[in-house]
Amino acid sequence: MAVYTEVSDEELEAFLADYDIGEARSCKGIAEGVENSNYLLTTTAGTYMLTLYEKRVDPRDLPFFLGLMEHLAARGIPCPVPVRGRDGSALRSLAGRPTAITTFLSGMWPRRIEAAHCGPLGEALARLHAAGGDFDLRRPNALSVAGWRPLLEGARSRAHEVMPGLAEELAEELALFESDWPGDLPAGVIHADLFQDNVFFLHTRLSGIIDFYFACNDLLAYDVAICLNAWCFEPDRSFNVTKARALIGGYQRVRPLSDAEKAAMGLLARGAALRFLLTRLYDWLHTPAGALVRRKDPLEFLAKLRFHRGVTDLASYGL
Amino acid sequence: MAVYTEVSDEELEAFLADYDIGEARSCKGIAEGVENSNYLLTTTAGTYMLTLYEKRVDPRDLPFFLGLMEHLAARGIPCPVPVRGRDGSALRSLAGRPTAITTFLSGMWPRRIEAAHCGPLGEALARLHAAGGDFDLRRPNALSVAGWRPLLEGARSRAHEVMPGLAEELAEELALFESDWPGDLPAGVIHADLFQDNVFFLHTRLSGIIDFYFACNDLLAYDVAICLNAWCFEPDRSFNVTKARALIGGYQRVRPLSDAEKAAMGLLARGAALRFLLTRLYDWLHTPAGALVRRKDPLEFLAKLRFHRGVTDLASYGL
Repeated sequence: MAVYTEVSDEELEAFLADYDIGEARSCKGIAEGVENSNYLLTTTAGTYMLTLYEKRVDPRDLPFFLGLMEHLAARGIPCPVPVRGRDGSALRSLAGRPTAITTFLSGMWPRRIEAAHCGPLGEALARLHAAGGDFDLRRPNALSVAGWRPLLEGARSRAHEVMPGLAEELAEELALFESDWPGDLPAGVIHADLFQDNVFFLHTRLSGIIDFYFACNDLLAYDVAICLNAWCFEPDRSFNVTKARALIGGYQRVRPLSDAEKAAMGLLARGAALRFLLTRLYDWLHTPAGALVRRKDPLEFLAKLRFHRGVTDLASYGL
Repeated sequence: MAVYTEVSDEELEAFLADYDIGEARSCKGIAEGVENSNYLLTTTAGTYMLTLYEKRVDPRDLPFFLGLMEHLAARGIPCPVPVRGRDGSALRSLAGRPTAITTFLSGMWPRRIEAAHCGPLGEALARLHAAGGDFDLRRPNALSVAGWRPLLEGARSRAHEVMPGLAEELAEELALFESDWPGDLPAGVIHADLFQDNVFFLHTRLSGIIDFYFACNDLLAYDVAICLNAWCFEPDRSFNVTKARALIGGYQRVRPLSDAEKAAMGLLARGAALRFLLTRLYDWLHTPAGALVRRKDPLEFLAKLRFHRGVTDLASYGL
């Protein structure tokens, strides 16, 4: 839950004068998203999202993110469309922050994931991968294997506060990925953070995909592996193979995985678990006690990592 | 900023089945209000606010609050209107909390108060007082003079952490109010918390008054005194008499203050400053360090209290 930057009515009025979307009727800070300040903006022309990019987003990446949303939306992916100002630019400035307005998407993210969500999710992910194929900007994944080492080093000296032996276990994992991570699988634009709060549904119809602020170029199958971690574990940390089958089945209806991708899925899923474990661990150890952000438990992903480590049979992933 | 209770899509769907306002299209937690969980709800029929009442609201008061909003709205006050379910009841239950849906109001609360806001505010306050005249439920003000003593006692032993000598200064003030608080001024329904984030404007037209969860029966002029504290001080804690004149002038265009009310205004304003100082002080000392609520500085109201203590000339209040 987050609104880091307050926007005054005068600032908003001046800001909207550069657009063709009428006058503000209301503007409410949204208690979702932990990276940016998000407002639900109603104007005389319609409803929009107003996003002020805070310090964790590198402004140099914004043309990639905004361009990608526009590119994907033009190809039928239900994602927010950046609204351009009168001068043609979608990336502007408000209250000292880089800012964009995007269209508003109907739907709610599922508080409880059902298997019925996972098929449509898999399909939408594959369509996103296909639609991203001819996007011509590039952004390397700063949170792939090469980025995990600095995170681990930044947490190593205090990781025992979270769990004794944690740093040692993670160091062994990381060494494995640094030597064995696949390099020759199909790559392209991936979402890289497709957790349940970034996917909207109306009943079980997928109506929106949001939050492209980790999107990058990387292995397509790694995006699937992230979704296995994000959508197919139960609150008790057990793996739900019915959900995994629905997810992979939906994906393959649009884009069949190659044999090499299937063979790598366990390793990719294990790496994805480490990636979210490391960022959560880093945040856990570096979030000030009084911060207005709810810290997420890093050990949830240790349980997932250990599950993937023990999987020998691709059928466990619905493959 | 606050969403304390998460609502699942299934719970929301079942909840809305008891209303005649269509199906949910979206439901976003709002980062405003510190007492309750507020969602901006869009349905196939329109836009609404969904409020889950949290533990600081006594459920026994809800019929007063909801009934008052309905009563005032029917008399032209621009406030949220509770939406009744199919069975005629506006007060229902969701995710284990007492819950109501109200209509959505356009407008934005002014981040920077201008004198041009204060006239419309005064007028609207007087209209609210007039419209409340024939409301037949009653709710005593738990945060009037009799309620200040327990707050002071609850903070006394640690008040020096906020400022040395604070407890002693507040005890002297309280003793004065306990002996001299006026009892014979015109009384009725007051809002009792009409700070800037509870009043919406479109430019300088007042478009909405929200958050009736401190409303009660008390002296009408005390509500004016609260607004003097809330709207007429600058960020540097100086008193802006132009704003006070606009506020009082707007009020008196609708309801002229009696000579007794005018004579009491300084004392009432000083008491109102103590009331907000005490609740903020109590919250300051009792909010856990990790809480997702931004604490408000109690000493802001000590500066205001001292200003009122020094005022001998009613012209300072625009009277």
